[in-house]
Amino acid sequence: MNNFHEWLREKQAFVEALLEKKLPQISHEIPLNEAIRYSVLNGGKRMRSLLVLATAEIIETPLIAIENIICALEFAHAYSLVHDDMPCMDNDDLRRGKLSCHKKFGESTALLVGDSLQSIAFSYLSSPSLQVNPDNQLKMIHAFSNAIGIEGMAKGQALDIANTNKKISLEELKKMHQYKTGALINAACLMTVLASKSHDKNILNIIDTYSKLIGLMFQIQDDILDKEANQEILGKTPGKDEKDNKSTFVSLLGVSKSKELAAEYYEEALTALKPFGDKAYYLAGMAELIMTRSH
Amino acid sequence: MNNFHEWLREKQAFVEALLEKKLPQISHEIPLNEAIRYSVLNGGKRMRSLLVLATAEIIETPLIAIENIICALEFAHAYSLVHDDMPCMDNDDLRRGKLSCHKKFGESTALLVGDSLQSIAFSYLSSPSLQVNPDNQLKMIHAFSNAIGIEGMAKGQALDIANTNKKISLEELKKMHQYKTGALINAACLMTVLASKSHDKNILNIIDTYSKLIGLMFQIQDDILDKEANQEILGKTPGKDEKDNKSTFVSLLGVSKSKELAAEYYEEALTALKPFGDKAYYLAGMAELIMTRSH
Repeated sequence: MNNFHEWLREKQAFVEALLEKKLPQISHEIPLNEAIRYSVLNGGKRMRSLLVLATAEIIETPLIAIENIICALEFAHAYSLVHDDMPCMDNDDLRRGKLSCHKKFGESTALLVGDSLQSIAFSYLSSPSLQVNPDNQLKMIHAFSNAIGIEGMAKGQALDIANTNKKISLEELKKMHQYKTGALINAACLMTVLASKSHDKNILNIIDTYSKLIGLMFQIQDDILDKEANQEILGKTPGKDEKDNKSTFVSLLGVSKSKELAAEYYEEALTALKPFGDKAYYLAGMAELIMTRSH
Repeated sequence: MNNFHEWLREKQAFVEALLEKKLPQISHEIPLNEAIRYSVLNGGKRMRSLLVLATAEIIETPLIAIENIICALEFAHAYSLVHDDMPCMDNDDLRRGKLSCHKKFGESTALLVGDSLQSIAFSYLSSPSLQVNPDNQLKMIHAFSNAIGIEGMAKGQALDIANTNKKISLEELKKMHQYKTGALINAACLMTVLASKSHDKNILNIIDTYSKLIGLMFQIQDDILDKEANQEILGKTPGKDEKDNKSTFVSLLGVSKSKELAAEYYEEALTALKPFGDKAYYLAGMAELIMTRSH
């Protein structure tokens, strides 16, 4: 998939330049804006953004809408990482090999960074210049708010806290991850479809199925990497979930069965994409990328 | 103003019943929902909601829109209080005479309560059942996201942290409060106007002026009460700003000049309302209430 890797490099550069441009400029009055930039421009994989761009390859979506959806997703993702790293949560000093936001800027600023990133995400999504039918734009905002709130990311985080030091079932583990990371991955793809003039219910359903499958696959891979990879490649301390006594796919199923389950979801995701034919090339590439990633 | 006080009692009861109904139900899986309910149903004055209802008396606004605007405002306000009370911010153990959220439910849950309340606020504002023209609904969401983010509440909070232990000018103090509390009060009134079919630019301008004036008046009264009231009436420890070495209207101007300034804003607010005639009765009443409040 040579073409795919070229596409990937080009799109990753596009996303970095976009975020750099759309983030608030540094202010000398308060450290907040600098801390916001630091937390978003942190060398992330931009997986959610790439899923948006791969989805946009199957349907026509206005560029300005794609840009604002990407900002909203990366800001929401960064907000969740900043708050998760704080001492009262996971208490992580490092994020991708650099000081986490609260270690660099202090806890009160880190708290405000997360809060502000959430607000800015909604400001971008509700922008009057999106070139999206307003009813669909409202649907996008509604889907996004549910995906990061108590029907999504925040609920997943609360379940994660409740499940620490507790053996849970495979079904409970899946549910937790569907809320914690799956909901936002799902929303990334669905919002992109909603922003297109040409979307219909059938496309929405296929993308819904695909994105739910790769969300789970992503998490299983995360657990396998946490068990198998070494710190240098991973960019964070491996084995942390085990040490924190959290259930993972690997702790419940073992490495080999976890790999089988991921492969099953991968095949199902590719099957779901069949009706799109060649147009699904990049979405299939993203599924493969997630399946084979080493960090 | 006998009628006004009857109206006030009736509307306060309406808001409490509404929030009780619209808040997420308690879940036995996670403490999050209970902590969310605890933090919103805390005996607040519901000032922002009452301003929405008073604004709705001058223009026709669909009830369902009013209800969702009220939820969004009270959830955003509650989120800011929960995060502000946390140890890395103001470190307050008590909020209106009860344990603050992190003292009652722990810091990690308090962090998630604030994060979730912000998302739920946007979920209510983007609801498909609002009966508002979708372009105006998008404008409401955009105004709200800016009012609580880095052009509003979050920026005000960052300025507040930066200004501690520092003497600032009256203009800087006003600016900080316009961001910290003024922006949301302003958004409360403007969103109500935007939700109405019959609004025009003129009405928006008047309401904009009125709400900015009473926002400042509210803060000056807060500082005067912090200096003069006793703990029992105030429901929180008075003199905290002085102890924390923060600039206030009273520390910069003294009590007597602060009262004069508040009275000036009050008169200007009433003057701004003149074009509405008798319809402005409840908005005028709200201004008087804020001017004469004892807690």
